[in-house]
Amino acid sequence: MIKFIPIVVGIISVLTAAVMALRVLKKSPGNKKMQEISHAIQRGAITFLNEEYKVISIFVTIVFFALLFAHFYTDLPWQTSLAFLTGAIFSALAGNIGMRVATSANARAAEAAKKSIVDGLIIAFSSGSVMGLSVVGLGIIGVSLFFLLFSDADVASILFGFGFGASSIALFARVGGGIYTKSADVGADLVGKVEAGIPEDDPRNPAVIADNVGDNVGDVAGMGADLFESYADSIISAITLALLATIYSNADIYPLIIASMGIIASIVGMLFVRGSNGYAALRNGLFGAAIIFAILAFITTYYMMEDMNPFYAVLVGLIDGIIIGLATEYFTSDQRKPARKIAEAAQTGAATDILEGISVGMMSTLIPIISTCVAMVLAYELAEFYGVALAAVGMLSTLGISLATDCYGPVADNAAGIAEMAGLGEETRRKAESLDAVGNTTAAMGKGFAIGSAAITALALLFTFVEKAKETMGVEIDLNLTSPYLMAGLFIGAMLPFIFSSLTIGAVGRAAEKMVNEVRRQFKELGILEGKGKPDYESCIRIATRGAIREMIVPSSMAVVVPIVIGIWKIEALMGLLAGATASGFLLAIFLANAGGAWDNAKKYIESGNLGGKGSFAHKAAVVGDTVGDPFKDTAGPSLNILIKLMSIVSLVFLPLFAKFA
Amino acid sequence: MIKFIPIVVGIISVLTAAVMALRVLKKSPGNKKMQEISHAIQRGAITFLNEEYKVISIFVTIVFFALLFAHFYTDLPWQTSLAFLTGAIFSALAGNIGMRVATSANARAAEAAKKSIVDGLIIAFSSGSVMGLSVVGLGIIGVSLFFLLFSDADVASILFGFGFGASSIALFARVGGGIYTKSADVGADLVGKVEAGIPEDDPRNPAVIADNVGDNVGDVAGMGADLFESYADSIISAITLALLATIYSNADIYPLIIASMGIIASIVGMLFVRGSNGYAALRNGLFGAAIIFAILAFITTYYMMEDMNPFYAVLVGLIDGIIIGLATEYFTSDQRKPARKIAEAAQTGAATDILEGISVGMMSTLIPIISTCVAMVLAYELAEFYGVALAAVGMLSTLGISLATDCYGPVADNAAGIAEMAGLGEETRRKAESLDAVGNTTAAMGKGFAIGSAAITALALLFTFVEKAKETMGVEIDLNLTSPYLMAGLFIGAMLPFIFSSLTIGAVGRAAEKMVNEVRRQFKELGILEGKGKPDYESCIRIATRGAIREMIVPSSMAVVVPIVIGIWKIEALMGLLAGATASGFLLAIFLANAGGAWDNAKKYIESGNLGGKGSFAHKAAVVGDTVGDPFKDTAGPSLNILIKLMSIVSLVFLPLFAKFA
Repeated sequence: MIKFIPIVVGIISVLTAAVMALRVLKKSPGNKKMQEISHAIQRGAITFLNEEYKVISIFVTIVFFALLFAHFYTDLPWQTSLAFLTGAIFSALAGNIGMRVATSANARAAEAAKKSIVDGLIIAFSSGSVMGLSVVGLGIIGVSLFFLLFSDADVASILFGFGFGASSIALFARVGGGIYTKSADVGADLVGKVEAGIPEDDPRNPAVIADNVGDNVGDVAGMGADLFESYADSIISAITLALLATIYSNADIYPLIIASMGIIASIVGMLFVRGSNGYAALRNGLFGAAIIFAILAFITTYYMMEDMNPFYAVLVGLIDGIIIGLATEYFTSDQRKPARKIAEAAQTGAATDILEGISVGMMSTLIPIISTCVAMVLAYELAEFYGVALAAVGMLSTLGISLATDCYGPVADNAAGIAEMAGLGEETRRKAESLDAVGNTTAAMGKGFAIGSAAITALALLFTFVEKAKETMGVEIDLNLTSPYLMAGLFIGAMLPFIFSSLTIGAVGRAAEKMVNEVRRQFKELGILEGKGKPDYESCIRIATRGAIREMIVPSSMAVVVPIVIGIWKIEALMGLLAGATASGFLLAIFLANAGGAWDNAKKYIESGNLGGKGSFAHKAAVVGDTVGDPFKDTAGPSLNILIKLMSIVSLVFLPLFAKFA
Repeated sequence: MIKFIPIVVGIISVLTAAVMALRVLKKSPGNKKMQEISHAIQRGAITFLNEEYKVISIFVTIVFFALLFAHFYTDLPWQTSLAFLTGAIFSALAGNIGMRVATSANARAAEAAKKSIVDGLIIAFSSGSVMGLSVVGLGIIGVSLFFLLFSDADVASILFGFGFGASSIALFARVGGGIYTKSADVGADLVGKVEAGIPEDDPRNPAVIADNVGDNVGDVAGMGADLFESYADSIISAITLALLATIYSNADIYPLIIASMGIIASIVGMLFVRGSNGYAALRNGLFGAAIIFAILAFITTYYMMEDMNPFYAVLVGLIDGIIIGLATEYFTSDQRKPARKIAEAAQTGAATDILEGISVGMMSTLIPIISTCVAMVLAYELAEFYGVALAAVGMLSTLGISLATDCYGPVADNAAGIAEMAGLGEETRRKAESLDAVGNTTAAMGKGFAIGSAAITALALLFTFVEKAKETMGVEIDLNLTSPYLMAGLFIGAMLPFIFSSLTIGAVGRAAEKMVNEVRRQFKELGILEGKGKPDYESCIRIATRGAIREMIVPSSMAVVVPIVIGIWKIEALMGLLAGATASGFLLAIFLANAGGAWDNAKKYIESGNLGGKGSFAHKAAVVGDTVGDPFKDTAGPSLNILIKLMSIVSLVFLPLFAKFA
């Protein structure tokens, strides 16, 4: 009986998402102008997704047949291909639903904000909840289905297929979406704000719709796919380690039950999101869900397991996630010292602003790394490798609601943009902007959380890899750190995040350059600023879409091909590669995300009237810092989350292949 | 008989240095004004060194007694303390000699450049040779002495003491010197060039002497101590691995003989530095020495060893060093695509200039990492861990001449500064600047080489650590990568270079801010720009000195304390720490150094008349990039070289302590 709980909870989750979606859609979408803008954003977002799906479907088809082919030559089960396909489809589905609702909710949130901030907040949050609950619902349904259906076969290898499918979508969504959103943003800002001196979200800027589309494809679809992957992978690695090496009976179904409790806690937590203070409402929801989850997990463990250690391991992960979120908030908030020190450094120019931001970003790695190391060691002491995987499951347990607060951000951002573009007046715009400000804080925490969960999931996968490799290779593999092959793998692995970031940051630069030239051309040829012509939004959307699609190919392929090549060479080098990539990817991701977030908020701090306010020397310097930070925090940083997880899951899937060559 | 060769060659090296020094000093030091300036620089440099020595002597005293104390409670030999003291004194001595000659040679090179560029080049290069030959001479004498005197005792542990002493000086010299040079440089530029609009090296700028002092304390004393450490450590690790585990007889003396051949090759190579083309002259010297060394090493190996594999391992290291140097040159030269792409990106502003530089810097890690991994694996296949240490010895074999070309740079830079400040006229200044331009290319290669040699030395030390730990701990330690303790150590180790860089970059920002305020104050209160008052150089020198001394304490202590604490906790965590720190430190060091170098040369490319030339929009953007790059390439990057070596050597020295706690 107990084994059907996850499926039932998953269905409840998806149904709740549907109810939330209807609740959003029945609200008024505002006046004609607002609807027009909202439709344009939605159309742009869907255009991008469709283009992206074309590339993805080629990739997925190739991999599907490669896996099927591998089945005939190695020990890979045939169901892995099927699971791969399902993982890809489920992830795409969750992202698609989430984005459609988000792009429908933006105008509705702006319209509701006319009356009160809280009404706007509820709409934006509900739309985020649709994404959150779709992700966890589809995630748990997918994993449970394959777990139940094929429990007699090599179920671990089948589940890796599901994870690989999810990872593939995440890869393209994060990398492509990240390049899209920042090339549009940087392009719009460099010409619009800096050169022409028109405000943010001014409808005369031809890149403004592309910019708003970018918020959705990057922060909704990209973030959703990223966390879908972490969510699925963490459960899969816990199940695998349960099957391979643990002392507990019930250990294999336990992670699914724990995840189910997390979904229930998330749904209940959503009821706490109310009241007049936006930030407090979201925080109450998050902490309420965490507490409820802890209680449910305690009871579950008490009745299911031989001792309470698995519960403590889950708790360790949950706390690690909270610590990382709070640390991220500290290092990026405009209320705190780090961002203010950056703002002060901006008074002596852009160079000092940037140096201070780099210094802050690097320092911000301290707490997440130490906290995650402590969590890993504790979880291991509690329940060995299985404990580490449980910590990852624990951290991600309340993803339903934490993802809802993440996806709240871009909806609020879009709402503020629509309020500006549709000319809803000072009052409404101010309200929409205060919605947006809440979103910025939650977005920073969400980013920290996404990185932290990616790292702990990657660690769990890493340990899974070793245990599974022992089984597949048939012998104890020598993973001694003194092997020069392992050490070479470690160095190359540590290098990959640098190369990957170089490619993605370079991609934003190149795509933004095209955008800059197009906006300049339109300003010159169409006479938009003089009020003579209307901007051509479509052409900017086209440029961002094409740039993102083209530029995502090389880094994405790298993430899949390198581990396979190294694995065929030497399995110990692959192990080193994964360890090196996880460590260096985790560090770079935190550094990039927090430096970017801190620059952003340092600029906002100045804009709110400090140190000379808007237009001052310090403000100009801070704008440079913010622009540098854009691809740091929204393209390169988040893409690294995928890189480290994907390489581990690719290695797991292709283990039978490496065994052939060993 | 053969065992006295290293001592004899070391003495020859030091004597040759003395002859070179006399050759420099007997040249005319120029007119009174030039002598005044040169004296001011020399005084400033010596003031800084004396202040630094005060801090170092406290540190050295504490460690000396700690080691002596440890001798009574653990198995540490008493000679380790003595060797530590000697290593520190020898390193300081080499740095002191090199810097005194360099600060005497600057005016002489400027004076000689009046007549011809080549005469100037010869003086600058000869002064660099004094540094190069002092470093290798004192290095080999020190290591050989302890090796010969205490061959009956635990000679490896004694030699680690020598390496630790050298590392300690290097740490303070690199970190303190790096902070000094960039706080003076950034401070001088931000007010002088950017705010007041006066040219580089204008005598009215109160920070100009401090800036010139900085070139010497950073690039001469800091670089010298850095490479003294690499040189000594690489030989020490080869000797240790020879004693612990190798199939070759003569293996222990072989590294010293090979190093001796390198010194002879360097001295002969110096004879090739002649002719009218500055860059070609230096290149001929470097490649000439490398070829002669290869021949001598071949012959030596043929007569000393059972097979030729050790020779090939040495050769692998030599070639790796050359590849890293060339790759660095490619990624930073203003003649190549990367720097030019940065210059083009500057046309759309400072933000895109910086993003492109970051992208270039990250991509530039590819070749050095792959090349070093290949070298490591090949060297291991040839002669196991001993081979890896030999590769490090091989890379550093011709250090005598390569360090001479490194230290050529700051002398030429100073000469150009003196030509400007003393008003020697357009013609001489132009000649001195073309000397300086040659110096910039060799400096970039030298930096790459310093990083590469630090990384391969750290790797050799890492493997030495494992072998020595096996012996000391008495048991086979489990260094399996799947240990969560080891993995936690790996993560924390990978984090340390980020924290270290954050501290040093932040330190430059803080010290530069004080400098900016002082220069602004002098301009305002003394009326220097109006020609009413004279600048107070001394107060700027004082500010740079104090800032550097104060700011170097925290990061330096961290480098020593963290490995000891982790080692006491768990030896496998320490092993992970060293591996993680080496990988991430190597990567960050290359990234920081090359991004900084490329920004610098992108700016120079624009200044030489491209893309609008001096004063254009692109130029202003490129200046921001260059300022960001200054502490990247001259403070944080080089300091990481020390961090990774020092932590390994600290771990080696304190192994008996860790054994107590295990």
